[in-house]
Amino acid sequence: MSPTPDWVKQLKPSGAQGHELLAAERANSNIPVQKLEELLHTKEVIQRRNKITELLKSEPVFDKSQNYFMGRTDRFERALAREKRLRILKKQHNWSFEDFRAATELVGEPGPYGLHDSMFMVTLAGQGTPEQQEKWLTKAEKYEIIGCYAQTELGHGSNVRGLETTATWNEDDKTFTLHSPHLTSSKWWIGSLGRTANHAVVMAQLIIKGKSYGPTPFCVQIRDLKTHEPLENIHVGDIGPKFGYNTMDNGFLLFNHVKVPHISMLAKYTHVDPNTNKFGRRGAPTLVYGTLTWVRSTIVMQAGSVLARGVTIATRYCAVRRQFQDRDAPAGEAETPVLNYTMVQIRLLPLIAATFALHFTGKSMMDMYQANQARMSQVKDQGDAKRGAGPEETESGSDLMADLHASSCALKSLSSSIAAEGLEVCRRACGGHGYSSFSGIGPWYSDYLPTTTWEGDNYMLTQQVARYLLKSARSVLKGERPTNDTTKILSEFQSRREIGCAFDVIGSDKDLVDAFAWRVSFLTFEASKHRDTEKKPWNDLLVDFYRLSKAHAQYMVVKNNLSAVQAIASSSQANNETVDVLMKLFRLFALHTLEQEGSEFYVSGACSKHQIMLARTNAVMKLLKDIRPHAVRLVDAWGFDDWVLDSSLGRADGKVYEDMFYRASELNPLNNITVDPYPESGVLFKRIEKSKL
Amino acid sequence: MSPTPDWVKQLKPSGAQGHELLAAERANSNIPVQKLEELLHTKEVIQRRNKITELLKSEPVFDKSQNYFMGRTDRFERALAREKRLRILKKQHNWSFEDFRAATELVGEPGPYGLHDSMFMVTLAGQGTPEQQEKWLTKAEKYEIIGCYAQTELGHGSNVRGLETTATWNEDDKTFTLHSPHLTSSKWWIGSLGRTANHAVVMAQLIIKGKSYGPTPFCVQIRDLKTHEPLENIHVGDIGPKFGYNTMDNGFLLFNHVKVPHISMLAKYTHVDPNTNKFGRRGAPTLVYGTLTWVRSTIVMQAGSVLARGVTIATRYCAVRRQFQDRDAPAGEAETPVLNYTMVQIRLLPLIAATFALHFTGKSMMDMYQANQARMSQVKDQGDAKRGAGPEETESGSDLMADLHASSCALKSLSSSIAAEGLEVCRRACGGHGYSSFSGIGPWYSDYLPTTTWEGDNYMLTQQVARYLLKSARSVLKGERPTNDTTKILSEFQSRREIGCAFDVIGSDKDLVDAFAWRVSFLTFEASKHRDTEKKPWNDLLVDFYRLSKAHAQYMVVKNNLSAVQAIASSSQANNETVDVLMKLFRLFALHTLEQEGSEFYVSGACSKHQIMLARTNAVMKLLKDIRPHAVRLVDAWGFDDWVLDSSLGRADGKVYEDMFYRASELNPLNNITVDPYPESGVLFKRIEKSKL
Repeated sequence: MSPTPDWVKQLKPSGAQGHELLAAERANSNIPVQKLEELLHTKEVIQRRNKITELLKSEPVFDKSQNYFMGRTDRFERALAREKRLRILKKQHNWSFEDFRAATELVGEPGPYGLHDSMFMVTLAGQGTPEQQEKWLTKAEKYEIIGCYAQTELGHGSNVRGLETTATWNEDDKTFTLHSPHLTSSKWWIGSLGRTANHAVVMAQLIIKGKSYGPTPFCVQIRDLKTHEPLENIHVGDIGPKFGYNTMDNGFLLFNHVKVPHISMLAKYTHVDPNTNKFGRRGAPTLVYGTLTWVRSTIVMQAGSVLARGVTIATRYCAVRRQFQDRDAPAGEAETPVLNYTMVQIRLLPLIAATFALHFTGKSMMDMYQANQARMSQVKDQGDAKRGAGPEETESGSDLMADLHASSCALKSLSSSIAAEGLEVCRRACGGHGYSSFSGIGPWYSDYLPTTTWEGDNYMLTQQVARYLLKSARSVLKGERPTNDTTKILSEFQSRREIGCAFDVIGSDKDLVDAFAWRVSFLTFEASKHRDTEKKPWNDLLVDFYRLSKAHAQYMVVKNNLSAVQAIASSSQANNETVDVLMKLFRLFALHTLEQEGSEFYVSGACSKHQIMLARTNAVMKLLKDIRPHAVRLVDAWGFDDWVLDSSLGRADGKVYEDMFYRASELNPLNNITVDPYPESGVLFKRIEKSKL
Repeated sequence: MSPTPDWVKQLKPSGAQGHELLAAERANSNIPVQKLEELLHTKEVIQRRNKITELLKSEPVFDKSQNYFMGRTDRFERALAREKRLRILKKQHNWSFEDFRAATELVGEPGPYGLHDSMFMVTLAGQGTPEQQEKWLTKAEKYEIIGCYAQTELGHGSNVRGLETTATWNEDDKTFTLHSPHLTSSKWWIGSLGRTANHAVVMAQLIIKGKSYGPTPFCVQIRDLKTHEPLENIHVGDIGPKFGYNTMDNGFLLFNHVKVPHISMLAKYTHVDPNTNKFGRRGAPTLVYGTLTWVRSTIVMQAGSVLARGVTIATRYCAVRRQFQDRDAPAGEAETPVLNYTMVQIRLLPLIAATFALHFTGKSMMDMYQANQARMSQVKDQGDAKRGAGPEETESGSDLMADLHASSCALKSLSSSIAAEGLEVCRRACGGHGYSSFSGIGPWYSDYLPTTTWEGDNYMLTQQVARYLLKSARSVLKGERPTNDTTKILSEFQSRREIGCAFDVIGSDKDLVDAFAWRVSFLTFEASKHRDTEKKPWNDLLVDFYRLSKAHAQYMVVKNNLSAVQAIASSSQANNETVDVLMKLFRLFALHTLEQEGSEFYVSGACSKHQIMLARTNAVMKLLKDIRPHAVRLVDAWGFDDWVLDSSLGRADGKVYEDMFYRASELNPLNNITVDPYPESGVLFKRIEKSKL
């Protein structure tokens, strides 16, 4: 297209400029942004992030300007190039594990080495023998081989036991035959497999003498190390475009009776004895339970920052965007920033509150997990000698672990749903421009969405939570002594059930949290009644279980949020104004949630009808007003660099319109083509070549 | 990549085949699919659709196989080629307006002629003088010029009065100067403008002798008719990629003091007298009000079928996809189709119900609109002579029109939100595969999303509804006689308010609808109290207004849904089984909604706590069970051709896995590249060329 003419380049947005509007916003609040940022992330993390951000910005391959325009193939190739460059930088700069993870997060796109660095290496390290690790892990660490983790199949996702790929032991030549007997047994969705990997850890049903020993991991070469072509009788490729995640080559993989040597079966815990042809076990991978808990806890914390990106963009843009005069304002008044409209505030401010609530909750989960892991290994060393000795020890390690595990399931489900749905709320709060890729929210949302499905589908997971809560209820009903927070709140509910409760949810923060505990307890005993007393089919209760899990997770979030803010207050890590706003954000999240779930709170007796009405019409509306002036500083405190956000609408300097225009007028490749617009020209496709004019 | 090997081509999915599973589903219900389809669409519409579908399928340019793989530029060029071909077919086959609209809908993608055919021509026809129509409309009809409608600007969307583009009358040479004084005055989001149009109807502030006369339409040439290059001092282009709608070239447009002749200003209603240099009016475009009502009514009806596509895909796939055994089932049982899980049913079946509810509601809105238009023109002819004469005449045409207008706003907001959010629910109900573009839901959702923002933003619109309801409340409080359904229900509520109500929402369909009316009335008088008595600021009530509008729309939907099913029953258009299922779908939609909005029903006194609990735990769960066997036939009745759905998961023959695999293995262009996977190779981008191997 013709380059942007000079007369266009001289134009400015009308009225108050974006940077002036954001400056005015920032002047309205005294929250010390940097202090709050340090409170969230620590100084060390911020410094590391800033250092690496500057480095990445200076590297041409990480230039983002064409990201939103590129088609699938180009995006994938660039993503792979970035992955390669990251590994070179890692070596050059001698990055620590944390440095490298920070860099990956800053690049902010799913990369084709994703499954190599994580599940491929983790599985080799965790389930391979020393010999196997020598063979593959050392090469994998140097990227001399690239791997992936092939579990999910076309016909089976969640149900691992249903996997169809087989690995049959051949007694004669001491090999395994990998085979895909059905179309549905094709490995599918396997990250890094489509184009990148030349090795795969393949989960297959181990069969010895016609007997199945269940899903077992095999490390298998799938492509030639030089030509990168698939090996014989292996069909492998990319599964095609997705709603997001298109920088990743999720792949498929089929085997046609492929023989692999004995060493291929990862044999730390299970093995086949080549002499006796017998299956054997040595120990069991006990940490899997813990690892899943850990992974889910990171998802909770990540959900806060994932959502914070969308909230940062929407809050800043809604402070810059003005539309209509206030209906009650005198005529001739300037247009109002849309952030002043309560209908915008009710959508965005509870999400700001959610970012902090999820961050604090995730952090507390991870702290508890680590403390418990440390204690468990200590207790193990001491032969459980001290068990029951001190007040903290009344909660045994394994009870705490089971509680943590259930909480991590419930919280993973809730937090990733809040983040995914919240991002879409942010996108719509940006009005029409939210639909442009330049908003930065849509692409980010699309890439985040799978989190609601993987590491336990958000619906499926709630069954695990319900199972745990039902078990806890049984223990309480049997009169057993509470061993963790869950049995504690259930016992309290049981003892007060007849008397009822009288929580001052609007006036007392403790009562507010207790009301959430009351509602979970009520729902737990209801579920227990349906399942254990009335013997209702499990399937008939799935909807109840889903709600129960959600209620449990919401209780965990408000509880952890309050503790975190109280801890900040008492440790004087933050000034009074910050603590005051954080406390208001806690209340906003809790009361807004309470109001949304009003009928459950009411039915459980945790709240009166009047309280639920008051929560909305008075408390929540008042909190919106109080928090509003701090909105921009609160999102500033998340500390996202403009390069990270890659959003016209979310720019820290408010130059929204300049940036939108620049991208459309200077970067957009569609403007390089000139079409023939006439149906009757007889030319369906051919562009008018500029040279012929 | 290597072609799919023969050993792969011979593979089949394991277990029961997709077509067997769907056949079994269809055998479980006696609903006559074709009859129900005719009831929804009429025979005539179905025949037209089938005829045109076959024609389009036979035309190479409409081949969809690369749709999900193509990048933006290719998709746009193909979309334009399809648009051209459609116009040629229209001529060749002498298509009626309905034929042509059906063809456009069947192609199912936003096309670059979209704004030419609609707003450009409609505005010329509606606001141009005969001379202007001769000059532009006749050419536009023959596609000798291609136009668009340029209203929205970078800085102004909803607020038309705030537009910044100016059209200044030049007394000396009798021309207008179009000018874009600021960056924010750039036209933006203008469909068909980016690459396709060579003309635009431009909305600009008319200025005569320094005085502004408000936004006024001008028809302006913007590109050369031969070279298709922008004219001098015009900067025009495509605004870049979006979350969806990427087959459309939404554009920007700036003017640098561009002079256009006097004829450019569309002068049917307003004009500038070139002799006196004075602004003049001749009548006013009264039909705009009605047109918007009509457009919104079509959106309501369309919402039903838009959602039905997603629901068809998800329902069929969930009948084919099996995962886990039922927990209560004996060991060794085959895996259960996920549609048997209540957690899947509670997500999908209320959406099936919503498709019918929205369809019937939209249809009834359009019928009422047309009846009223006809009556108004009749009444007008007869000088309002008959007003008040008969029982139907107690509702005057204009009161009915105001009521229809408010209902169309409320319903547009609700129905497009239900459809957009429902599509995402459908996508997630498909589990992991829902994320693949081949599911067909993601791309469809992305293209539909703007409907929640345009023709009145779904949040903004609710203020108009509230304004109308507040006005109606005032009228009732003054003791005025009810003139339409709204004032009728408000009056009834007023008269029974003290006594209270006792609706049997679970046992009586009429009571169920009345409970919805009661809740709207309660919320209306609450809002009226806040605004008119307590004098609360308008801005403080926006959240209440949003809820009020939603409640009003939900009442309209359940009311219209019940009437429609009752009409079908009494006219014996359908057999008993069909009527029975339609009635259950009505109840499912109504009770599920009631339960979701439980606290409002409870607070208003429309329901007791016990009823709300019963609605969920008994009534809704029972309805899921009753409707479940009919699910596949119900979605079959929407009659979507596989070519239209373009979905692996939603295939009518259940060949889900075969289709997923075919697209990935045979159609996916990413599999044509072979990468260099090693960071240390020193090659960031270069592919390994196959020829060099």
